[in-house]
Amino acid sequence: MPPNPADLVAQALTGNRLALARLLTLVESQTDSAIEALNLIFPATGNAHRVGITGAPGTGKSSLTNKLAQTIRRRGETAAILAVDPSSPFTGGAILGDRIRMRECAGDPGIFIRSMASRGALGGLSLTTNAAAEVLDGVGFDWILVETVGTGQAEVEIASLAHTVIVVEAPGLGDEIQAIKAGILEIADLILVNKTDQPGALRTESALMAAFHAAERPAYRHHSDIDQSGIIPPTSKDGWSIPILRTNAIDGEGVDAVLARVLEHRTFLQESGQWQAKETQRMQHAFEQSLRHALYTAWHDALPGDAYDDLLRQLNNRAISPQQLARQTVQAWLTGSKSESNRHIS
Amino acid sequence: MPPNPADLVAQALTGNRLALARLLTLVESQTDSAIEALNLIFPATGNAHRVGITGAPGTGKSSLTNKLAQTIRRRGETAAILAVDPSSPFTGGAILGDRIRMRECAGDPGIFIRSMASRGALGGLSLTTNAAAEVLDGVGFDWILVETVGTGQAEVEIASLAHTVIVVEAPGLGDEIQAIKAGILEIADLILVNKTDQPGALRTESALMAAFHAAERPAYRHHSDIDQSGIIPPTSKDGWSIPILRTNAIDGEGVDAVLARVLEHRTFLQESGQWQAKETQRMQHAFEQSLRHALYTAWHDALPGDAYDDLLRQLNNRAISPQQLARQTVQAWLTGSKSESNRHIS
Repeated sequence: MPPNPADLVAQALTGNRLALARLLTLVESQTDSAIEALNLIFPATGNAHRVGITGAPGTGKSSLTNKLAQTIRRRGETAAILAVDPSSPFTGGAILGDRIRMRECAGDPGIFIRSMASRGALGGLSLTTNAAAEVLDGVGFDWILVETVGTGQAEVEIASLAHTVIVVEAPGLGDEIQAIKAGILEIADLILVNKTDQPGALRTESALMAAFHAAERPAYRHHSDIDQSGIIPPTSKDGWSIPILRTNAIDGEGVDAVLARVLEHRTFLQESGQWQAKETQRMQHAFEQSLRHALYTAWHDALPGDAYDDLLRQLNNRAISPQQLARQTVQAWLTGSKSESNRHIS
Repeated sequence: MPPNPADLVAQALTGNRLALARLLTLVESQTDSAIEALNLIFPATGNAHRVGITGAPGTGKSSLTNKLAQTIRRRGETAAILAVDPSSPFTGGAILGDRIRMRECAGDPGIFIRSMASRGALGGLSLTTNAAAEVLDGVGFDWILVETVGTGQAEVEIASLAHTVIVVEAPGLGDEIQAIKAGILEIADLILVNKTDQPGALRTESALMAAFHAAERPAYRHHSDIDQSGIIPPTSKDGWSIPILRTNAIDGEGVDAVLARVLEHRTFLQESGQWQAKETQRMQHAFEQSLRHALYTAWHDALPGDAYDDLLRQLNNRAISPQQLARQTVQAWLTGSKSESNRHIS
């Protein structure tokens, strides 16, 4: 029996965790019921601080996220963790991370954990990640920690859904190349050099400074400016000075300082008007993504049974280029009868 | 003055390199002229062997690609290199790679090099990469080597445009985690352990075997089966035994063996009917991508001047959820007057 969106939302809003889990599964489906559920929860959203935590595999993102959630709990606030693996079609990594989390965070009703590890997510992973974050925001979590793996395109997109983005680096991962190539430094509001107990931490910091220099950041300063407090003089981004912090997340070292800086960033965003700008940007992004998905779905649902096979046959015969066929198909659909399409999308 | 697509195609087909470069820039633009150019070149395509070369930053992909191109040249065949960086909005990495390439490949008219390093590519980077590959195929290159950086979603998508995918691994990059998390092993037709002169190469191989084991590959064999020839007994994929080869690309060691295996893979694909299946899949992918792009463009072009701002205002007021607004917008557009949209897309 398919769950009723209104019932699920009502139950989830009372704090029912099973209903919340089912609601998250529903909104990830991108069905009409999902849209109904998102619309019902929408008025309750807009209160959570969304923090994106990203970095290459092996940097210790999961440990950092766990410790950050526990630090948030000690402030008397609640945290939901969304662990997103955009690259993996199987859930091996996610499950491993979850087990460690379970040991550290089990039994605390103020921490909720959700893994999303499907590469083939309908309409793109950032669409479903945003939908899940909306639900967690709506049911009242103070913080949403979105953890993404990799150094590719997907987590840059997912990071755009966050108010504050933490980029985690660690020694011994071919850093100097990674930092330059990854292109993720520009999305960072805070940079952590994690695993400072390991050799090469200083080299990682040097590589980060060099990468900032290469990207011609305005407020770049030389490495010799670093003082003994572990805080490297920051570079600037829209008026915010990006701190580079040292952490050792596995034993929680430096995590209090990270949260303090995240709270400073929140104040900065609110006072500068950028918090509201980010909200607008995020909703616009969700709108655009949903619109593209709805357009394709409307076209696809309106196709007669064998029309798609006919299109493929034309391609196989190399009778027409894919690009030209797409243009003609869209044109024909838009000028053709609408009765078919309306029946499906209404 | 905008270039005339028919003239550019005609000139590029005669071997004019300047025209080819301009044609590539044109087809990346996703304009009507780009579609016209692709349609003109389409009948000449379908002959090149497209090889995807991917792996994490620092594995030595660029050196491998260069050496592979030179090995192809010694066979009397031509190669085009498409260096794609899906993660980077700035071209630092790409330019560095190009300089090394220039030193190694300069002056050889049988090698053509093109970098694509724009994260915000119109309609997605795989769409523009495929368009560029179509042009290079059409003007007669025997091989198209598509090199992508990263361990994320984008290069998995770009790899789907290739007949043969080479995944490059290297020691000392946190391999055991990367191999499991990256989710790119499943797209591999050949796996290279590059930089075999560096410490940890054997550990990298062990990690690869373990990763295959974790993914429950049918033909997994134990590491102790490895013989002294440097070739590890392969696992199986649709009837193809995936070889794991050792290379040291910087001095060309093992690259002849790589090309030999790629040629074996070509024969396997042709004899099993998978070559044609991949061609179909690739054209279908290009069609789907172009269709989504055309649908969005048609909608966007039909918008009256201030309509988009009105939509944003509704979002900012939190009057309606982004998802619901998208659904209503698509519905209204499809049932509304079509004269506006037709005027723009025809």
